[in-house]
Amino acid sequence: MNQHTLSTPPLDSLLLEKLSGLIGRAPVRITLPDGSEISPAESAPAGTVVIHDRRTLMNMVLSPEIAFGDAYTEGRLEVEGDLVDVLSAIYRSLAGKNPATWYAKLASKWLERTQSNTLSGSREHIHRHYDLGTDFYKLWLDSEMVYTCAYFPTPSIGLEEAQLAKMDLVCRKLQLQPGERIVEAGCGWGSFALHMAKHYGVRVKAFNISHEQIAYARENAARRGLADRVEFIEDDYRNICGRFDAFVSVGMLEHVGTENYKDLGKVIQRCIGDSGRGLLHFIGMNRPRPLSAWIRKRIFPGANPPALRQVMDLFEPWNYSVLDVENLRLHYALTLQHWLNRFELSIARVAEMFGEEFVRLWRLYLAGSEAGFRAGTLQLFQVLFAGPKCEHTPWTRAYLYDQKTTEKQDVKWMHAMS
Amino acid sequence: MNQHTLSTPPLDSLLLEKLSGLIGRAPVRITLPDGSEISPAESAPAGTVVIHDRRTLMNMVLSPEIAFGDAYTEGRLEVEGDLVDVLSAIYRSLAGKNPATWYAKLASKWLERTQSNTLSGSREHIHRHYDLGTDFYKLWLDSEMVYTCAYFPTPSIGLEEAQLAKMDLVCRKLQLQPGERIVEAGCGWGSFALHMAKHYGVRVKAFNISHEQIAYARENAARRGLADRVEFIEDDYRNICGRFDAFVSVGMLEHVGTENYKDLGKVIQRCIGDSGRGLLHFIGMNRPRPLSAWIRKRIFPGANPPALRQVMDLFEPWNYSVLDVENLRLHYALTLQHWLNRFELSIARVAEMFGEEFVRLWRLYLAGSEAGFRAGTLQLFQVLFAGPKCEHTPWTRAYLYDQKTTEKQDVKWMHAMS
Repeated sequence: MNQHTLSTPPLDSLLLEKLSGLIGRAPVRITLPDGSEISPAESAPAGTVVIHDRRTLMNMVLSPEIAFGDAYTEGRLEVEGDLVDVLSAIYRSLAGKNPATWYAKLASKWLERTQSNTLSGSREHIHRHYDLGTDFYKLWLDSEMVYTCAYFPTPSIGLEEAQLAKMDLVCRKLQLQPGERIVEAGCGWGSFALHMAKHYGVRVKAFNISHEQIAYARENAARRGLADRVEFIEDDYRNICGRFDAFVSVGMLEHVGTENYKDLGKVIQRCIGDSGRGLLHFIGMNRPRPLSAWIRKRIFPGANPPALRQVMDLFEPWNYSVLDVENLRLHYALTLQHWLNRFELSIARVAEMFGEEFVRLWRLYLAGSEAGFRAGTLQLFQVLFAGPKCEHTPWTRAYLYDQKTTEKQDVKWMHAMS
Repeated sequence: MNQHTLSTPPLDSLLLEKLSGLIGRAPVRITLPDGSEISPAESAPAGTVVIHDRRTLMNMVLSPEIAFGDAYTEGRLEVEGDLVDVLSAIYRSLAGKNPATWYAKLASKWLERTQSNTLSGSREHIHRHYDLGTDFYKLWLDSEMVYTCAYFPTPSIGLEEAQLAKMDLVCRKLQLQPGERIVEAGCGWGSFALHMAKHYGVRVKAFNISHEQIAYARENAARRGLADRVEFIEDDYRNICGRFDAFVSVGMLEHVGTENYKDLGKVIQRCIGDSGRGLLHFIGMNRPRPLSAWIRKRIFPGANPPALRQVMDLFEPWNYSVLDVENLRLHYALTLQHWLNRFELSIARVAEMFGEEFVRLWRLYLAGSEAGFRAGTLQLFQVLFAGPKCEHTPWTRAYLYDQKTTEKQDVKWMHAMS
């Protein structure tokens, strides 16, 4: 770093220098309208951040995350080169560090205070993101509308197949047996609940506070003739009651807030007691730290992906054992790559629906998430756990990877249903 | 519970009642010399604890763990029925709770203070257990002298095969490549270091503070022609230096003490930096709590199996990612069953070496450990982790269960060596 053109005014030079420090001296070129720039000294830049005005530059020095996101959204900043590559380079250079300015820390704390995940807060947060409209999500999700990390047995398979493989992986980890009762907390558009009932012969109660998603899920259950085995309930995880054999939650824990984990743990214990088991699938962090302030401000209010340490608050009070943790972060990077590609093919339609700024906002969110999982600032954990009296502890994990087991599972289920 | 004979003196009756509460109302009969007893009211007892004198009964009410262990060792107490079954029943009834008396709490704290894992403390603790003599351990360990949890791809295979399978599982999780440099902290009698070098073509530096184990390991390395590729060093993990591709430790973390995890984390970072990976294999707990005071007093001074939460102290400061956690507690129960069976076949020889009390001491330790893993008061975790710049993240875990991969691995290694 450290190459300015001769004509760079001293203030700009200072600000560029400062900004370069804030992004961890990432191998990225940054340019200003007058042609002045800062470039990596050692390696070829991953791309160029083109800043269109000095106000944007100053905002970025004050609060890089939020200012970068907002300036990109509003077109006051552009990225030349591959957006995911540029963001990955920055995340890798920061390597989990967050050299936050005082202003950025303040903004982060402010968001935390104003975006509390109370019953009504959660409803508002979920509504803001998930009720953007099923038509919008249909443009770029898979046909089953699964809005969580997929599982690619090999990277070359398609998104549709990978989402099915993910649902199957979770069912197999839980060793679902025909006739069992399963509770799902945070069920999205309902595909996983329907998948469990259809392919594993279980009965499911699935909870979600997104009105639009629940409506879609109910319609789908009726259309597929599964309404007698899958009940979709528009309610908060805190209000779940009933007894179940297993608890499962795919992509909800990020929205719960670590301060509510003890309560969620109580809910789980109420549901499955000492003899049940469960699986949590969630975006996580290597260590406790807040999610990008920009993401919380513009995309996911109240979101808080936990470190594994924090997740233990759910299990320890009940003497639950962690049986298996799998980190699938590269699978989420690939999932996001699929989503971003599909999104780009639909931007004309998205712009019609929500305007050009929305297109840029969501492009940055999807690209930034892909970069986060690629660079390792974000992780994706699947945690399998069991109560102290659970008798479903698998002997090894080999059955997860044995095609014959799956077929046998299907046969067993068919047998039970006939 | 609550059935006393009519003749039970009031004090004995009170003490029996109290003791029954302290063992969680476990379905176990307890008898006194005068014939008075307390029995489970609802189910058949798993066995009978025969207490030979009132002093023992009083000690047990004061400090059940230590008093039970010492009385069993000295023959002031016997167990009729299967020892492992009786202990499992008690552990299951306690279900992770520890209704410790004030005296027991005091004794536990006292052990903690006097058994500190300083450099010299650790040396003393390790010496006391592991330097009992290779001849003693040869009587009941497998031929490779592996004194950690084995891995049974199916429960029916023998101990020798299961120890090899465990060593292979760890090598595969680490994706060892020919020519890589590996550091092992706490290497026992050295079989795993030799296994890595022989079957995966890596160079190993292996550390241990047990003088006798290191001497045995060096002899073995020379005899097998591996001394140029495996260096055994008699030193503490705190003194490890050098750069390596991977860090591995099988069965040492239990002896480190959670208060030293930050320091161990620094050692790991010094060894593998941001680009390495590692695996820790250790006895753990569902939540932070002290190990049985009797075990710490008589068997493993200074031992402290951690909860997963505590293990995060090693990784978080360095932004290391947890890639995979596997809980193998049932494999340790089976391993201990093998050890206990072999031990029982050698008790005449053990009694000659150390006396009858030692036989009873070690029988209780082995049976109690098997019961702990069976009942779930003890867990066995394998944690695979990687630095933020590690490029060895496997795409899925299927390769761990694919026989073809193993063969390919061997071929690759043979290729590199030829």
